Amino acid sequence: MGGDFGPDVVVPGAVAAARGRKIDLILVGVESRINAALGKLDVRGVGIKIAPATEIAGMDEKPTETMRRKKDTSIQVCSKLVRDGLADGLVSAGNSGTTLACGMFIIGRIPGVERPALAAFLPTEKRPIVLIDVGANVDCKPLHLMQFGIMADVLARDLLGFSNPRVGLMSIGEEEGKGNLQVIEAFELFRMSSLNFVGNVEGRDLFTGDVDVVVCDGFVGNVALKLAEGLGSSLGRILRGELKRGFFAKIGTILALAALKRFSRLMDYAEYGGAPLIGLKGIAIVCHGKSNAKAIANAVDMAATFVTKKANDHLEENLAVNKDFTLFAHKRSDQP
Amino acid sequence: MGGDFGPDVVVPGAVAAARGRKIDLILVGVESRINAALGKLDVRGVGIKIAPATEIAGMDEKPTETMRRKKDTSIQVCSKLVRDGLADGLVSAGNSGTTLACGMFIIGRIPGVERPALAAFLPTEKRPIVLIDVGANVDCKPLHLMQFGIMADVLARDLLGFSNPRVGLMSIGEEEGKGNLQVIEAFELFRMSSLNFVGNVEGRDLFTGDVDVVVCDGFVGNVALKLAEGLGSSLGRILRGELKRGFFAKIGTILALAALKRFSRLMDYAEYGGAPLIGLKGIAIVCHGKSNAKAIANAVDMAATFVTKKANDHLEENLAVNKDFTLFAHKRSDQP
Repeated sequence: MGGDFGPDVVVPGAVAAARGRKIDLILVGVESRINAALGKLDVRGVGIKIAPATEIAGMDEKPTETMRRKKDTSIQVCSKLVRDGLADGLVSAGNSGTTLACGMFIIGRIPGVERPALAAFLPTEKRPIVLIDVGANVDCKPLHLMQFGIMADVLARDLLGFSNPRVGLMSIGEEEGKGNLQVIEAFELFRMSSLNFVGNVEGRDLFTGDVDVVVCDGFVGNVALKLAEGLGSSLGRILRGELKRGFFAKIGTILALAALKRFSRLMDYAEYGGAPLIGLKGIAIVCHGKSNAKAIANAVDMAATFVTKKANDHLEENLAVNKDFTLFAHKRSDQP
Repeated sequence: MGGDFGPDVVVPGAVAAARGRKIDLILVGVESRINAALGKLDVRGVGIKIAPATEIAGMDEKPTETMRRKKDTSIQVCSKLVRDGLADGLVSAGNSGTTLACGMFIIGRIPGVERPALAAFLPTEKRPIVLIDVGANVDCKPLHLMQFGIMADVLARDLLGFSNPRVGLMSIGEEEGKGNLQVIEAFELFRMSSLNFVGNVEGRDLFTGDVDVVVCDGFVGNVALKLAEGLGSSLGRILRGELKRGFFAKIGTILALAALKRFSRLMDYAEYGGAPLIGLKGIAIVCHGKSNAKAIANAVDMAATFVTKKANDHLEENLAVNKDFTLFAHKRSDQP
């Protein structure tokens, strides 16, 4: 029911993905509106169930308000289906704060995961990278950062198909010992971990493609993600303003803008469908409110890949391998 | 003596600025090398003194090492000149960590300033903005952020000539209450302050030009600055790779690259000369190690403007106006 366009975009997107991937759909929300959207589509051969939900979590509503006052929103019903094993994962274009809250408090964490994290796939000069966390956790301990790395390693392997992902820690200098207290301590944990840790990376390394995973806290990641999105758009407007002289310049503008638009589109959630919230018993894909049907389809496809690749099994293996020193780190990071 | 090119670049840059601004220069460093560089220049009409310094702070040397083991590096001698009132400010292209340390421990802070901060001037779609802090302080309290705002306000007024700078706080959502603990608490302080506080801004707002000052801690600011620099270069390489088809496409590439290059050049420290370290009794302009003579000239020019505009007097006035609640905040932020 969420997102700027509700079932009119979510239903056709989900149906398209289900047909392509041969998966079964459960559409959760106000039945009459879902049926109206389904009525416009050819749904032959696609397994579709409807799980009714009578309420809607507002896009501008505070997650805490929604969670307290409402019990039967589509995101809550959807999360319960995942919790109860009736759905393998969920996709939502609704209020992302509410989706995070439902993920944490209804679906619940995989044992051993301290904080589920939101990941984004970014285009680079070479192949895409995983940036984690992009906004789920704004105040993190070093151990959280290390676990983000463990989770993103699984995403890079299972969703991007990389064999031995190079994991970097976002900092303000390449050498060990550079960064804030959080990052300097996390560096040690990363080095002890089973990850293919390549050390600190800086803001300028985010788009070169020389690393596959970049780990940071959700505040830094969110600033970085939005800065990259914004800089793409701003450069487009700067180009448009600057290149208006003469015939060749006009051609140049058009071509340059096309290239920039391609980049912006890559930056857009639409291209990859959404941001996986990883660390839950199940998977939640958080889509932009402005997602179109194609973005929803990509998100459903991503959720399906996550499930069929058994990414959560790999995550549990990754956690188990790194368990001993996680306990050590946990003790230490509990100290003031 | 610092920077990748030493006196060969620093001396001609400084002399050019001194002639343009009609200011007196004190060149600090190994006399023979300074004289060799001066020998290649026309220095008629420019007031130049040499202050000898026998040692050099290495670009890769740890600042703590330099400060402990050496006493007579050019940056140390230079800082003492400022401390003793024999120079109004300093410009250095040397090891920036060492410059920060000398600023803090030799020149010293203006009373009331908790943490001197490093500011950067960034190009936007409209007029430039001040981003502060870009790396001097990686672990900040809310009060530090508020003081960065007070300092950047002075830079925007005195160096950029803006009359009532709009000050934004970098966060991950526009609404009050969004952000990490540090930012949420800082928001209150900003609202109480005398600043023209426009609320939270996000990463995407950095290049629109709709705000004049963006405040963040030095970790976030450094990541943001380097990300913007890196994204410009990466986009250039992506464009170069993508637009190689046909005649018009080639023209397009050339024009688009020219526009991007203009942007990258703006992003470069060279355009504005350097990053002011503000909050000291005097001023220190921190230049990129790779600065050319033009960048040094711009930095010296910036230092001169800072002094002639009496920016530090304005900073003290700004601090005084905001003194009462600073004390309140100080007490609170001392609590665990």
